[in-house]
Amino acid sequence: MLEKLKNHIKSEFDLEFKDESLLLEAFTHSSYANDHHQARHKNLERLEFLGDAVVELCTSAYLYDKFPELPEGQLTRIRAASVRAESLAQLARECDLPQFILLGKGEEMMQGRERPALLCDVFEAFTGAIFQDQGYEQARQFLSQVLFPKIDHDDFSHGMDFKTALQELMQENGEVKIDYDVVDTKGPDHNRTFYVEVKIEGDSYGVGQGNSKKRAQQQAAKKALEQLSQKQASD
Amino acid sequence: MLEKLKNHIKSEFDLEFKDESLLLEAFTHSSYANDHHQARHKNLERLEFLGDAVVELCTSAYLYDKFPELPEGQLTRIRAASVRAESLAQLARECDLPQFILLGKGEEMMQGRERPALLCDVFEAFTGAIFQDQGYEQARQFLSQVLFPKIDHDDFSHGMDFKTALQELMQENGEVKIDYDVVDTKGPDHNRTFYVEVKIEGDSYGVGQGNSKKRAQQQAAKKALEQLSQKQASD
Repeated sequence: MLEKLKNHIKSEFDLEFKDESLLLEAFTHSSYANDHHQARHKNLERLEFLGDAVVELCTSAYLYDKFPELPEGQLTRIRAASVRAESLAQLARECDLPQFILLGKGEEMMQGRERPALLCDVFEAFTGAIFQDQGYEQARQFLSQVLFPKIDHDDFSHGMDFKTALQELMQENGEVKIDYDVVDTKGPDHNRTFYVEVKIEGDSYGVGQGNSKKRAQQQAAKKALEQLSQKQASD
Repeated sequence: MLEKLKNHIKSEFDLEFKDESLLLEAFTHSSYANDHHQARHKNLERLEFLGDAVVELCTSAYLYDKFPELPEGQLTRIRAASVRAESLAQLARECDLPQFILLGKGEEMMQGRERPALLCDVFEAFTGAIFQDQGYEQARQFLSQVLFPKIDHDDFSHGMDFKTALQELMQENGEVKIDYDVVDTKGPDHNRTFYVEVKIEGDSYGVGQGNSKKRAQQQAAKKALEQLSQKQASD
């Protein structure tokens, strides 16, 4: 399993471990360690402890830079959506990690290999192992390859409210008029795409699209926030 | 204030900021920003968001290395004790940071400069500013100067149970006999120091001291854990 895993992470993420025991540890579930009478700390839990904090910091730093206009409360909300268990479990699947997990028999029979909480733990432990073996910058680069693009594409923003963020931001200096207009729709009734333009005091700040007006409005507000952030960065 | 702050952090921590506006932001409380009609994001809250995650990761990595024998649950407990608001507020005081905080009039009158939650926020924001200006390694070095020695000296371990940790660790491979004996006491009744030796299967693993037997036992257990960790690291 270790050789196959090493080839996989080399070809997918250009990663080579100095200490391969860390890599093995990151993929060893406690149920496997128990079955094989390994000492309790030789499973992924300690690396998960570390990786959880690595994912949290890298994501925080990414959002801090990406949204220089957003207040702390909004950043916290986006971060929570980005690093929640279901999101990280999805990443574990997309990185093809589940096949390499060493599971105990009982856990295997209980479909543990598909359990989101377990997959999230493995993703964090793997990130923790990269950090421990190669340092902060390499762990950040791994996440910039697999996690940050998903934040950019808004895959994880369920429950995030860009409209409210934009409104709060613009109204810091008094009343500001923000309008959302449907400028186009495409596709048949059962699969329609809406295009919504956001205007601030009459000026367009971008067009968002989505399979509902609400979703398209959120995307438009997100584009406006990004544009305002870029504007500030270049001022 | 900025010049004095710059001199202070140069002489105390050998820190020089490239972007001094970050330093200023880290010491600007929202009450001051509000009094002076500054945009909401030009207070310390965004840097606190970042710094909270920096402190968490640096502390996690430190504990991960320091206690290679401890399972994840114990690491989480020590981390929680190390980074809780009261601990970080104490660090802010010891680093002489409170004098530099820009506070609004109302907050100043309410003794905000002494409020632990506010001091914790400033400590985190300052750490976040170091990270943002100079990177992970520099932030880690700052914490290794001010925070880690306090973890080593056990200043923050209220509520941490080294005895339980040692017992759990030793009993992974079956029953093990652990004894704690008072080997000495010093000082008058009202100010007594107890010395407790810990023995594992009859072998001494260190002597702890404290102003109660319980405290001295905890210190002895901590020494045993550290000794076992060093032993493992050199194996």
